[in-house]
Order: sequence, then C-alpha cells, then structure tokens
Amino acid sequence: MSKVFVDVGISLDGFIAGPNGGAKNPLGDDGLKIHNWMFKQKAFLSHLKLEGGETNNIDNDTIEKTIDRIGANIMGKSMFIEGEANWPEDSPFHCPVYVLTHEKRESLVRPGGTTFHFTDENIYKILENAKKSAANKDVRISGGARTIQQYLNAGLVDEFIIHIAPIFMGAGVRLFEHLDKTKFSFAINNIINSSEVTHLFYNVKNK
Amino acid sequence: MSKVFVDVGISLDGFIAGPNGGAKNPLGDDGLKIHNWMFKQKAFLSHLKLEGGETNNIDNDTIEKTIDRIGANIMGKSMFIEGEANWPEDSPFHCPVYVLTHEKRESLVRPGGTTFHFTDENIYKILENAKKSAANKDVRISGGARTIQQYLNAGLVDEFIIHIAPIFMGAGVRLFEHLDKTKFSFAINNIINSSEVTHLFYNVKNK
Repeated sequence: MSKVFVDVGISLDGFIAGPNGGAKNPLGDDGLKIHNWMFKQKAFLSHLKLEGGETNNIDNDTIEKTIDRIGANIMGKSMFIEGEANWPEDSPFHCPVYVLTHEKRESLVRPGGTTFHFTDENIYKILENAKKSAANKDVRISGGARTIQQYLNAGLVDEFIIHIAPIFMGAGVRLFEHLDKTKFSFAINNIINSSEVTHLFYNVKNK
Repeated sequence: MSKVFVDVGISLDGFIAGPNGGAKNPLGDDGLKIHNWMFKQKAFLSHLKLEGGETNNIDNDTIEKTIDRIGANIMGKSMFIEGEANWPEDSPFHCPVYVLTHEKRESLVRPGGTTFHFTDENIYKILENAKKSAANKDVRISGGARTIQQYLNAGLVDEFIIHIAPIFMGAGVRLFEHLDKTKFSFAINNIINSSEVTHLFYNVKNK
C-alpha cells in the first residue's frame, strides 16, 4: 500500500522559499540557500543527470532513500510554473507528476520518464490516481506550501519529513500555516543529523 | 569564561507562546502545551520543589544539564510579569535574575536563592553584570522572544538551544522574527531526540 508523504527543506525560521518567487526567480530571493546541503550531494545531482557530488554521508543517503521511494508526485500550479521554466529538459522526477491546475492542458511527456498530468479534479481523486501510478511505491506531495497544507488538512498525509537548514530567511513562504490542527497530529519517528542539516521524520496521525 | 545561551521550547510552527498571554494566562492560549515534555520530568519538577517526575531518560538529563550551567538569567519585563503572578514563592531560578524594565523597583529577594534585579541599563551592561553574578557558570537569556532577539541581534549569544515539540500553535509569539541575519549565523552543534521532543543545539557565530 502506497504511503503518502511530504519531504521538504525548510529554514530555521520556517520558510520553504524566499519572497518574490516565480518562473524567473525559482524559490524566491535567497530561497535556494535552504537547499545548499542538498545541492552538493551526488544523490541529488545524479537525479538531475549532473556529474559529481559527495557520497558516503548521511545527507546523501537520506536523499537517496527518499528518491527511491517516490512512485508519483503531486504538486501545485505555482511550483510547476517555477519548475517548468527552470528544470532541465530531462526533468528531475522520472515518474508521473500530477499538477493541480484549472488550466486545461494535454499531459506533457518529458524525456527520462517524467509525465506531467494537469488536473482540476478534487485532491482525493488526484491522490487516488497518483497512488495507482505509484503502484508499490509511495506518493510524494511535493509542494508548494498550499498544496502540502491542503493535503495535510484533508487528513491524507501519512509521513512528514522536514530538513531544517540552520539559516534564517526573514521573509518568504511559510510551510506551517493555515493548518487545521484539529484534523491531525504529528508523532516523532526519527531524527537524522549532520553538520549542515537536521532531518526530522514525523508520522502523521489523522483524526 | 561564562557562556551566554538561549534555551527555549518551541512548537513545530515556530511559536514559544500562544496568543493572549499575560499574568492571568501564562504562556498564552495553549502555550503550556509547548512544554508538556518538560513538565513530566523530575529535573524540572524538583527545581520547582515539586515531587515526582520521570528520571533516567534523555529529556530529563537534558533539563538537568541546562539547569546546572545557569549562574544568572536575563529576562524581559513581560516574561517577569507573567512569572511573578504564577511562579511559586520559592521561584524557580535559584540565582540572580536581571529583569529589563524602565520601572524603578528595589531588588526582590525570594526564598531559595532567586534575586530579581530590575534594570534599565543597556543590554551590554546588563549582560556584564549578569556574567559577574554567574561567576564560573553561564548566563541564560531566558526570554521572552523580544529579549532573545535583542541579544541575538547584538551579537551577544554564544549558544542557542531549542526544544521542538511536534505540535502546532497556529498563532502566538514567534521566536525567530525581527532578526538581523547579517549579524550572526548558526552552526549545528548537536541534536538529541526523544519520542516527545527534539533538542537542537546550535553554536552562534557572531559577525
């Protein structure tokens, strides 16, 4: 049975992106810094078909394990718009990606196994389709913040992973807001720590 | 040489207190929940001269180590006002506490070794006095958020410890805002995890 999980990098003051994000400014002002720990790891770079990167460290292992479990992604329209303008042609998912949008658009097949499906069905139905696509793998709610919040508030997330970089953004897009805390609670599952980032793994109990 | 440190409990969405805090509502609506993990530990309860509590666990050890290192506290006026109305007569510091306030008031000696000094000197001078009082122990910037932010922005904090409870407040007093991130950076020092709370220890590099 596919699990549904969130896996997202965050600054210590709670932002997943800087202000003024968009196609020409992916992740907003200074937002890329939230992921500096990740950009240097081979597991991330090779997923983008880029050379180099560090191996044999806990951050690389953590990325590798996450990538291995993803069978399908769900993302919001804004995240897709930012990504479409910036991802390489061989975009970094290598599996189906369901994009929440009211725009009618044919599915977009990119080299390397990524197919973007554009859908305005309700979030339950979209998840059902994503689970079918994922087969025995898991579904990742990729972002952005609003999409993650929607799925969390609907009681549809099983696991929530955050990677806290010890940096401060001061402004931008907050991850943990607009939450209906009567609908779910978090329980600590595991913590992995390196000198650059702290990985926190929570199980979500839905009510 | 005394270290200056912050040690504060925080919700996963970044709050150190709920909304509507004050003398009659210490830590604000639902704010006490941020510290549930702490209230059950012997190291905390015995500091309040209360019986019972759990021992032989990593959370209790963490509290004990923190308490042992404190030679003096610095706190803001609002924190003091909330506390004065709610701390037991034998208030839970057992060392000098410097309260930032413009109110003129004689030092207040409480049983059990806590003396509150009320001061409107600048924060550098107050810290100097606190360090003298602390002798070979450390100075804790106790709170609230504004006092912590002031000391952090002044480049006066050496270590920053947060205890993240896996709960959501939704509203209240944020710890990490109004920060001048050009003045300091955080480096991960250590992480301690239990099933109820995650203790993150950062070293502060002041610029």
